[in-house]
Amino acid sequence: MSELTITGVTVTPIAVKDPPLLNSVGVHQPYALRSVIEVHTDAGLVGIAEAYGDDPTLDRLRRAAAALPGLDAFDLHGLAQRVAVALGEVVADTPTVLIGYASVAKTVAATVAAFEVALFDAQGKATGRRVCDLLGGAVREAVPFSAYLFYKWAGHPGQEPDEFGAALDAEGIVAQAKWLVDRYGFGSIKLKGGVFPPVEEIAAVHALREAFPDHPLRLDPNANWTVETSHRVAAELEGVLEYLEDPTDHIAGMAAVAARTALPLATNMCVTSFDDVPPAIAQDAVQIILGDHHFWGGFRASQKLAGICETFGLGMSMHSNTHLGLSLAAMTHLAAATPHLTYACDTHTPWQTEEIVEPGALSFVDGAVPVPAGPGLGVSLDRDALARLHEQWRTCGIRWRDDITPMRAVHPGWTGERPRF
Amino acid sequence: MSELTITGVTVTPIAVKDPPLLNSVGVHQPYALRSVIEVHTDAGLVGIAEAYGDDPTLDRLRRAAAALPGLDAFDLHGLAQRVAVALGEVVADTPTVLIGYASVAKTVAATVAAFEVALFDAQGKATGRRVCDLLGGAVREAVPFSAYLFYKWAGHPGQEPDEFGAALDAEGIVAQAKWLVDRYGFGSIKLKGGVFPPVEEIAAVHALREAFPDHPLRLDPNANWTVETSHRVAAELEGVLEYLEDPTDHIAGMAAVAARTALPLATNMCVTSFDDVPPAIAQDAVQIILGDHHFWGGFRASQKLAGICETFGLGMSMHSNTHLGLSLAAMTHLAAATPHLTYACDTHTPWQTEEIVEPGALSFVDGAVPVPAGPGLGVSLDRDALARLHEQWRTCGIRWRDDITPMRAVHPGWTGERPRF
Repeated sequence: MSELTITGVTVTPIAVKDPPLLNSVGVHQPYALRSVIEVHTDAGLVGIAEAYGDDPTLDRLRRAAAALPGLDAFDLHGLAQRVAVALGEVVADTPTVLIGYASVAKTVAATVAAFEVALFDAQGKATGRRVCDLLGGAVREAVPFSAYLFYKWAGHPGQEPDEFGAALDAEGIVAQAKWLVDRYGFGSIKLKGGVFPPVEEIAAVHALREAFPDHPLRLDPNANWTVETSHRVAAELEGVLEYLEDPTDHIAGMAAVAARTALPLATNMCVTSFDDVPPAIAQDAVQIILGDHHFWGGFRASQKLAGICETFGLGMSMHSNTHLGLSLAAMTHLAAATPHLTYACDTHTPWQTEEIVEPGALSFVDGAVPVPAGPGLGVSLDRDALARLHEQWRTCGIRWRDDITPMRAVHPGWTGERPRF
Repeated sequence: MSELTITGVTVTPIAVKDPPLLNSVGVHQPYALRSVIEVHTDAGLVGIAEAYGDDPTLDRLRRAAAALPGLDAFDLHGLAQRVAVALGEVVADTPTVLIGYASVAKTVAATVAAFEVALFDAQGKATGRRVCDLLGGAVREAVPFSAYLFYKWAGHPGQEPDEFGAALDAEGIVAQAKWLVDRYGFGSIKLKGGVFPPVEEIAAVHALREAFPDHPLRLDPNANWTVETSHRVAAELEGVLEYLEDPTDHIAGMAAVAARTALPLATNMCVTSFDDVPPAIAQDAVQIILGDHHFWGGFRASQKLAGICETFGLGMSMHSNTHLGLSLAAMTHLAAATPHLTYACDTHTPWQTEEIVEPGALSFVDGAVPVPAGPGLGVSLDRDALARLHEQWRTCGIRWRDDITPMRAVHPGWTGERPRF
């Protein structure tokens, strides 16, 4: 099996129904955009992966895909090189809100990541190995995730209420947490904040603490607070939260908050590429980094980040955007093969009502996802579902993520500008 | 080929003739100690590696080896775990001078490394892949090494002169460099210093510069200078050396030197484990780290180190102890698969007159070693040579590296204490 050469790549955009989850910028659109990568090889094996699906991403994926035929599926350095060359003209203001402030390095990293996951899937299929085995071996056979709570409307404006119901205050958040913990067995809880005035979100956290006395709790206002507000909230929630995620923007802001609280600060906003790591460490701005293979550059880049965090005494968790099972499988293999993972991972899985992978390979047991048996990622595409969600992409009219415009349907004049509190 | 389970491990100590190379501590013994690891698998494949061969190392290798049967050859995290458990009782003052100041973490790392290389060789043989391909792909198909110059006696005390001749002054060093560059095509030159008063070694460097106007030059006195001496020499050699390696001891000492010179400082002495990295970076003590898979923990740990160096803007080269072709193959595959390698690597290869790998796989072309074709490391053991060098180990009477005692045969009262200048 020494030959495993890429013969072609397909990129299939899909749109996935998404509930009206609220955040600091606005509200999720009715559809979230993803893409499915299929890397064909001369061995007849196909490696698969899930990536972002907004138009700028699709453009990059397609331009990079054209450069990949002929590449050895084991040649990850060659992949990075080909992608970087193919995207040489990417500019710094490419509009994507998924991975923080866009830059050439980050858009290249996200593009590399999409294909790298598919290459690992192909390598695993060719060698009869799970992806986690190719990543150094599973240090855990099930990966713990946290219950990811969102303030949300009952339904998208003008649409019927969805199956999840509204959650707009402490009572609604606790009810949502109970549903998630009952159904999935999650052992820790994260609340997406930055939506309501901090006093309300503090109340929600206290209500969660009362309802779940033993569950570690996290709050993530997505940098919607000033440094001053962050100081106040941190003082209120010391000893209550296991960590406070991105209370305010930028490394300097986070460093100012960190300097006056014992509460560990986590980020997936001010440290989103390797260039951000040295200043964040020098300024002691964060104590935990949330990795995400989708934008850090793939599995190996994520392990590089984990090695840095381990070396410099930083904790690690895993960030999530809206995703389907193909990404969940990738996240699970990576987390299984990452010794230095110190907190349960984030996932949007409970909020998705559509799926592209065939059922059976992925499940939650006591809040953790057992590593799919493989080979490769251990999941296979449901071709009918893929066709249906691609058709949904074709007709839904959404081409990039925009949480601001749908918010304006309810709050005219909404800007999404931060910090709001 | 999804099964590749370790069924047994053999550790064969060997002794290799070594010329009387001088350094800051003393002089090489007539024999250098190495060991050959053979990891047997249920697939019938055998993975091989070369490691240190002193008695404390052999004891650790054997204790760890006993814990490995049953381990999946892809499970590198499981390897690290089993070795750490097996060596739980290792104490901090284990006498080894090969890898700097000994510590539990470092002796565990060196033990893991020995087996990890053999596991990669087995993985490569099982998958029909080169080790460099399993490490992410070769970014260079030939790895540049530097000419490693040593002050040396004509022969060991009481023995006939060896084939290399004496080199005890600038003239001898230049002649040695000419021989190495003529024979191997090396494109850069490193002088092991710390042997004679700095004024003599500065003169040797200037003589090298005159004889080789275009070759990058390095000087490595192995921490045999005070900070004050280091300041003086650095001032003399700014603009002449590409880097100055370990002029003085400890991170604080190196930081003090670095603060007053534009000459980049390299180390394989004050940063030898991941624990050393944060303080070295915080103090801006070094600009280049010389990795070495033998003591950093293997290939993956070396790639982790490279990722840190890349992220924090440090250069990278590769350190060498006396080694044979099995280690050279491992070093070559690793360096080939390490994008962030910014200087030619060190090797002791030209000084070895005995070998354990079958001829043909390894060569120097224009100062670089083409990556062996594989599968695995791409080299095979010469069983007759292995038996002969093992017998040499049995009878040579040397059981650990000691550069001080043989120096006393010539300089009674020699202590090897640093700094001497």
